[in-house]
Amino acid sequence: MPSRLKLIVSYDGASFAGWQSQAGGNTIQDHLEAAFQLICSQPVRVHGAGRTDAGVHAIAQCAHVDLPARRYAPERWILALNGILPPAIRIMRCGFVSDSFHARFSAKGKRYRYRIWNAAVLPPFESGRAWHVRNSFDVEAMAAAAQSFCGEHDFASFVANRGTPETDTTRIIRSVKVRRAGAMISIEFDGNGFLYKMVRMMVGMLVRVGLGTAPAAEIAARLQSPRKANPRGRHAAPADGLFLVRVRY
Amino acid sequence: MPSRLKLIVSYDGASFAGWQSQAGGNTIQDHLEAAFQLICSQPVRVHGAGRTDAGVHAIAQCAHVDLPARRYAPERWILALNGILPPAIRIMRCGFVSDSFHARFSAKGKRYRYRIWNAAVLPPFESGRAWHVRNSFDVEAMAAAAQSFCGEHDFASFVANRGTPETDTTRIIRSVKVRRAGAMISIEFDGNGFLYKMVRMMVGMLVRVGLGTAPAAEIAARLQSPRKANPRGRHAAPADGLFLVRVRY
Repeated sequence: MPSRLKLIVSYDGASFAGWQSQAGGNTIQDHLEAAFQLICSQPVRVHGAGRTDAGVHAIAQCAHVDLPARRYAPERWILALNGILPPAIRIMRCGFVSDSFHARFSAKGKRYRYRIWNAAVLPPFESGRAWHVRNSFDVEAMAAAAQSFCGEHDFASFVANRGTPETDTTRIIRSVKVRRAGAMISIEFDGNGFLYKMVRMMVGMLVRVGLGTAPAAEIAARLQSPRKANPRGRHAAPADGLFLVRVRY
Repeated sequence: MPSRLKLIVSYDGASFAGWQSQAGGNTIQDHLEAAFQLICSQPVRVHGAGRTDAGVHAIAQCAHVDLPARRYAPERWILALNGILPPAIRIMRCGFVSDSFHARFSAKGKRYRYRIWNAAVLPPFESGRAWHVRNSFDVEAMAAAAQSFCGEHDFASFVANRGTPETDTTRIIRSVKVRRAGAMISIEFDGNGFLYKMVRMMVGMLVRVGLGTAPAAEIAARLQSPRKANPRGRHAAPADGLFLVRVRY
């Protein structure tokens, strides 16, 4: 009888120190593990599909846990966990899966959305949930340039340093969609995997193209010769606008 | 030369003690007056179109101030004020008006929106911005019943006590629109004026109709004989879901 529970977790990352458990606490993983421990009366390890940084949001992060006992039906787990978790972290769905499922190792890809509010004033309801850029953009130029990211490339020029350097920086981007709806510009990336701060680096690049401060050709050049690219040209967009939309399995 | 500035103010009410200035501070009015005082180096009184309670939001509250000197152009006032105010309070627009304009006394009506999230789990991004009701609703019954509020009525049965009782409890509701989009039910009220907690009382009534715990006819009965209505039947919906959408002049 399987006791591995798959969780779909949504969170507003504004008030948390990111996904991954850390000494200071107040991460999404810390809150989830504390809720499980309270229910199970023993430590339970939560395995996420991937980390998200402080301030980054998730519409549907995925995680799994191995329960000490299959005590409740999935609907009861949702009620019990959400009753303990802060309102900014919610279990949206959950269900029992076989032991062959692993939130991180079974993941085939992810989808991220980045939101930019492009107007003079950022409305209070978008505070912490979009990057506020006042200058006007050429969204069509951004959308065209964004297509350069599609396909298999070495993204070494679009990764931030997280202590240990990545050995393999090759990733496949399946699609990039740039849309404008009023003042909101959204950029959605679908790929087989993303390096540390890679989405925010790509957004930073696209915004420079949209504002006319970088040529669109710089993207192709950086992908073709990542090790030669000027590291000063790297600009990570702020965490506020980034949403993990889904994990594909 | 007029020095009366009209402000369109948007705020996420979740972390404030309502609109009206009070001893404890942390109201929208307090924050606005503090920002003006910092810029003008003297106290400036802010006059709002009306009060909103703690937790109630505004997409476009209206207010006016009499400036000691017409120091800046409107665009500069927006930048200066938003540079001081917390991100949850934003001046969206502003402009100079004649001394005959008064945010409260010139108002001809208001529009309010109430949002209800009708699903098992309230997503983190709707926390504090919608009333979470799990039970399923008859939205069509609510929409039909809502029309009973339209027209001129004595709303004495849909008002909460705020110390001094209202002498005239007659108001005109111009329209009530009930819409469902996925799990979100929104109810929009347009009227010439609203009594204390009147929108939340009307929503509380409509939700009881939608859930089948009150007959639709109770609305007409309460409007026809407000003083005879059972005060126990009054239920104010929580502040979270309420948004002041606009003030008409």
